[in-house]
Amino acid sequence: MSDSPENHAFPVEDSQHWRTRAQAKLNQKTKPVGALGQLERIALDICAIQKTEAPTVDPARILVFAGDHGVAADAVSLYPKAVTAQMMANFAAGGAAINVLARAFALQLELIDVGVDADLRSIDGVTDQKIAHGCGNIRVEPAMSASELVRAMAVGAQAALRAHQAGCKSIVLGEMGIANTTAAAALLCALGVGHARELVGAGTGVTGDKLQHKIAVVEAAVARHQMAYPQSKAKPAERAGAREILADLGGFEIAALVGAMIEAASLQLVVLVDGFIATAAAHLAARIHPAARAHMIFAHEGAERGHKLALSAIGAEPILHLSLRLGEASGAALAFPLLRAACAIVNEMASFTEAGVSTAER
Amino acid sequence: MSDSPENHAFPVEDSQHWRTRAQAKLNQKTKPVGALGQLERIALDICAIQKTEAPTVDPARILVFAGDHGVAADAVSLYPKAVTAQMMANFAAGGAAINVLARAFALQLELIDVGVDADLRSIDGVTDQKIAHGCGNIRVEPAMSASELVRAMAVGAQAALRAHQAGCKSIVLGEMGIANTTAAAALLCALGVGHARELVGAGTGVTGDKLQHKIAVVEAAVARHQMAYPQSKAKPAERAGAREILADLGGFEIAALVGAMIEAASLQLVVLVDGFIATAAAHLAARIHPAARAHMIFAHEGAERGHKLALSAIGAEPILHLSLRLGEASGAALAFPLLRAACAIVNEMASFTEAGVSTAER
Repeated sequence: MSDSPENHAFPVEDSQHWRTRAQAKLNQKTKPVGALGQLERIALDICAIQKTEAPTVDPARILVFAGDHGVAADAVSLYPKAVTAQMMANFAAGGAAINVLARAFALQLELIDVGVDADLRSIDGVTDQKIAHGCGNIRVEPAMSASELVRAMAVGAQAALRAHQAGCKSIVLGEMGIANTTAAAALLCALGVGHARELVGAGTGVTGDKLQHKIAVVEAAVARHQMAYPQSKAKPAERAGAREILADLGGFEIAALVGAMIEAASLQLVVLVDGFIATAAAHLAARIHPAARAHMIFAHEGAERGHKLALSAIGAEPILHLSLRLGEASGAALAFPLLRAACAIVNEMASFTEAGVSTAER
Repeated sequence: MSDSPENHAFPVEDSQHWRTRAQAKLNQKTKPVGALGQLERIALDICAIQKTEAPTVDPARILVFAGDHGVAADAVSLYPKAVTAQMMANFAAGGAAINVLARAFALQLELIDVGVDADLRSIDGVTDQKIAHGCGNIRVEPAMSASELVRAMAVGAQAALRAHQAGCKSIVLGEMGIANTTAAAALLCALGVGHARELVGAGTGVTGDKLQHKIAVVEAAVARHQMAYPQSKAKPAERAGAREILADLGGFEIAALVGAMIEAASLQLVVLVDGFIATAAAHLAARIHPAARAHMIFAHEGAERGHKLALSAIGAEPILHLSLRLGEASGAALAFPLLRAACAIVNEMASFTEAGVSTAER
């Protein structure tokens, strides 16, 4: 395990080769060609990621990374910062949405404290990887140092590696952190995805004047960043720029997500990306290590204002459109059965020949 | 079990009462109000159907009704009529998409021959309820007689009742029948939902001149119907008109779906409606017995051209948008885990009080 997961060497292989083979296999199944629509696209994505005609996403592990944000002090959320720690206790006790969904769909769940502003070491079921008690207030200061960024990304990479070593074929990535839609919007602004007014949304339910205030906070954070790193504004797509953006405007749990996404690519893990914040992390992972993008499947388009734009900007075709806005990997967990189904279709459906069914007349 | 399931008496209860109670329960859960989006709407629907705050959709049974169509002789499908029977054998052997999905999601599956044009009695696993070897060619003659309609609807009602007696809480409704998108489009035209050019789609993959021919066949069928039943054109919403439309332009498997939907309403079964053909059946069930509508959840908006219009016309908010066009209840099976998840959220998530989590600041 390196402290710099983005420096791993990756084999250059032809994912199109596996996509073509999987498509040929699907076209022999007892159904009209293409009749399973997006489910077939998901199947091809998984086959390409795993370089196989016999895909499987199980066992799967949900990784929920948690961290607090200094910018929570700026009243950008309806909830007090203390809720991050309270929800970690709720996760550990099994009472949150993600617990319910993990049980319903037989998904493993690991909770990782990367930077919650409370001592959670006494809570069973939380992996203690705390880097600091919350990150800096991005409106006025960097979220973290370059050294903290490396460590936070390594926390994510290590969690992905643990899942891989436990035999998991996929990881389901989500987060918890009061005020982290503010950080995600700032990151996407700095990456050139859109303007604050397009990317800042209600989060936990901020509307009206509070939403305008949240937009102003994001604009201030991005303006501060661009003053500090003028080259980042000029060339946001450059890799060094992406790392600077992440350290300056991100958060510990977001950096961990980025590290997990990059590490997953070298492990051939399927990465199921949850909502707005995880999508912002996906942008950064893809900028820092372009090969990471091909391993990602985007679970859903949520209700958060900027999510659709962020998905579109990374070429994602989200599976579900349920107006979710919870995080915790909940949307990704809800999409997971469709990945399972896509694999089962490839592996188990009979071909026309096997079933003795007539093919289409032309 | 009556031959006329639409004549059952139904208790008049306030589904809004249960919707309100369930909403209040959801609003206490440890998440921002409404943050689970459409999943919360699904949960409220199920609570209202079951008149409970402790909803459950399991056990669940998929009912696939199969029948052949005389209009298949008019080259409206890419596949020969024989495929209906061949696919029934494939279903019975476990090789079709719906088998794979039923296994993946632990759903019961019953296959019911209502009118396949082949002797399937030797196939284990097919319930023989055959009324005739295919229905009439709707372009030139009625699909079935009034007596056959009553019997076909009773087949569906009996299947719903069997599921209920076996303890099922929900039924997942789909069909198999080469050329039945033609019948479904004709039914929806006759019901006043839209024009043939809006409602006739590719079905198994018909395009270009063949699609124009299919549109012409539907137009001819509807014109024949309106000549035979001029009052049906004048007042398509009347109940007697809906039964005439169904007998004249439907099919045995479609009539069975209608019967199942109507019977399910008296049994408080959740009805998960599959694709274009099942949605056409839902229109008829709701016209014949308006109380049936409240028990329906619409699984998906598929790729078939008329599906979006048919869903909109019945006020449906489909759960999935995956461009499916297979039938067999496959889209409904894919949506089923989300119903399960919606129930689990209501039943298992902790409240703010239980979890000791702070509520929103206002």
